[in-house]
Amino acid sequence: MSSVTTSNTSAAPKGLDGVVVASTAISHVFGNEGRLVYRGYDIGQLAGKTTFEEVCFLLWKGHLPNQVELDALRATMSAQRALPDAVLATIRAMPASADPMDNLRTGASAIGAALPISGTATFEQALALAARFPTIVAAFDRLRKGKEPVAPRADLGHAANYLYMLTGEIPPENHVKSLDTYLVLLADHSMNASTFTARVIASTESDICSAIVGGIGALKGPLHGGAPALVMDMLDAIGTADNIKPWIDQALDGHHKLMGFGHRVYKTTDPRAEILREMARQSSTPEFFALAHGTEEYALAELHRRKSDQKLYTNVEFYSAAVLSSVGLDRDLFPSTFAISRVAGWTAHVLEQMVGNRLIRPQSEYVGPLGLTFAPVSERA
Amino acid sequence: MSSVTTSNTSAAPKGLDGVVVASTAISHVFGNEGRLVYRGYDIGQLAGKTTFEEVCFLLWKGHLPNQVELDALRATMSAQRALPDAVLATIRAMPASADPMDNLRTGASAIGAALPISGTATFEQALALAARFPTIVAAFDRLRKGKEPVAPRADLGHAANYLYMLTGEIPPENHVKSLDTYLVLLADHSMNASTFTARVIASTESDICSAIVGGIGALKGPLHGGAPALVMDMLDAIGTADNIKPWIDQALDGHHKLMGFGHRVYKTTDPRAEILREMARQSSTPEFFALAHGTEEYALAELHRRKSDQKLYTNVEFYSAAVLSSVGLDRDLFPSTFAISRVAGWTAHVLEQMVGNRLIRPQSEYVGPLGLTFAPVSERA
Repeated sequence: MSSVTTSNTSAAPKGLDGVVVASTAISHVFGNEGRLVYRGYDIGQLAGKTTFEEVCFLLWKGHLPNQVELDALRATMSAQRALPDAVLATIRAMPASADPMDNLRTGASAIGAALPISGTATFEQALALAARFPTIVAAFDRLRKGKEPVAPRADLGHAANYLYMLTGEIPPENHVKSLDTYLVLLADHSMNASTFTARVIASTESDICSAIVGGIGALKGPLHGGAPALVMDMLDAIGTADNIKPWIDQALDGHHKLMGFGHRVYKTTDPRAEILREMARQSSTPEFFALAHGTEEYALAELHRRKSDQKLYTNVEFYSAAVLSSVGLDRDLFPSTFAISRVAGWTAHVLEQMVGNRLIRPQSEYVGPLGLTFAPVSERA
Repeated sequence: MSSVTTSNTSAAPKGLDGVVVASTAISHVFGNEGRLVYRGYDIGQLAGKTTFEEVCFLLWKGHLPNQVELDALRATMSAQRALPDAVLATIRAMPASADPMDNLRTGASAIGAALPISGTATFEQALALAARFPTIVAAFDRLRKGKEPVAPRADLGHAANYLYMLTGEIPPENHVKSLDTYLVLLADHSMNASTFTARVIASTESDICSAIVGGIGALKGPLHGGAPALVMDMLDAIGTADNIKPWIDQALDGHHKLMGFGHRVYKTTDPRAEILREMARQSSTPEFFALAHGTEEYALAELHRRKSDQKLYTNVEFYSAAVLSSVGLDRDLFPSTFAISRVAGWTAHVLEQMVGNRLIRPQSEYVGPLGLTFAPVSERA
């Protein structure tokens, strides 16, 4: 490290594995215990009992809203779901073949330009962004299918509005419940790559929309939010419950990776997977649930039998895929739906970053050449 | 840190000060020596001798292009400067009052959707993005002024095309030279916040456009790329060379911060500032250069006299502002022009990140409550 000349430097592990980059009171993952906490509440305390709107308030403000606060939040979100004309024009300009995450990244960015969103991040800005995410995703999905966007309904909550704006029909209660629970469960997860991205951007004192747009870009990556669709591809390939054993045996014999198992942080069952399994049970067809659950059980048993030293667990992606599929979402909308949830956490982390902020500006080690002599282009080999 | 349960964690300094997060062969800042190196070349070897296009090639490929390579690069960039219809429609939808960086963030994102840009990052994708940045910025600047965008000219280089697309006129040689040198000087700067942002996003195996859009958002922050305009505001307030002494004396007496001095990494003169001073000298009016240079000299002397223990130096923002102003750019275009340059570095770092990539997924320390018991909304205070 002789080439690094700032006075005190230290090399971090690759991928910043295990490096604590921030203190946060928003959420924490207790990886060894299979425990996820939002603002002091274990996730099992919240899932199924709270709506996504309540969890947004909890993450942003630090406590669950009382009735007056919740009514005010719902009214403001409801008033802000519609898109500014400039944003809708941007979505209309998208090619129908565009990746829905590219649409969301661009549409969210256009919101920042159109409202506009600038200055030090506020609760109101967090709300203005989170409120519009489902509208951006649904408008594009309608347009790419040759249909006109559907305006949000004031009498529906966040999860129900998303399904309504996709289909134009009031969604069934069990679908709303499953999706709302999914949105609650995925809303924050400590210092994951997209949240860290949002905090690095916010640390420059850039605006909250810029931070969130960065988060969308990071979430798009297959190592982060891009995997749930692959679980569905696997379940499709298996096809029916009686094909589970031969399919998985063949996959593992061929040393192929099964989708939806294992996580860098959890060393035991992901608590979100447990809850999502129940949601999938209640919103899926019996055939599909038998396929998904049967695959999980056989895969876990077989993975353990073959590698008893290395226990793998079902991760959040496995039943996320099952739940989102069961409520009728196209699988290329899974990452955008993840973002509809995670924007709650991103914005909460940006608000927290701005308290006692310091620019996140790390160092690099130079491993290239030095002292090369310039030659004009005519003299280069 | 009892709440962090992963096996091995270590707390990093706030802002990741001094933490080496990556090895890179692209560029390095030797802060104590006032030295900046691109791929083995000291910046003084390149500035004034190379065009921005050559430096893009150097950063992306690791060596300066020979004539055949440079001709091919120029031809490809030239062919790619025009914007896809979807991107132009997005820019046309922008409110005229939008922040130009919000336009660039949205327009760059729309390029990713429209081309599209997906999969593992490539040299060709880096080029496709860098080629279009000036077109996005210039098209919006024309439209917000009630004028139609100007198409790029195949016979002009990158710097000249940017000025041409802004004004519709072939720019004078000394402006092109100053701007091209600025673009060369700002193209990379080791592990700054926007470059780190781009690498974190890329580490999820997201696409290069997502990474670059995150970089734009980070660069927008006043602690990173947002300051050059403030230097111009200060020079405006000083007004004329004979007002330098009273203005600075009063500012320092009132403990106000002077814009354009000091840097977290450089402990001596920023080598880029020295070169930009000469560019400003040759493209400014004599009156403006006297104001800028006089302000620099008096401010440095007075800062040193008042705080002899803490020596401050002119940073890159000071003469960046002078140079960009001297070639006719509106000051709210300074951050976007910085991005037109820095996209070369961002894309080079994304290409490098993808070699032996590991997901950047750090940890956080939880400082919030634990064990709270849920109560339904009707029972909350």
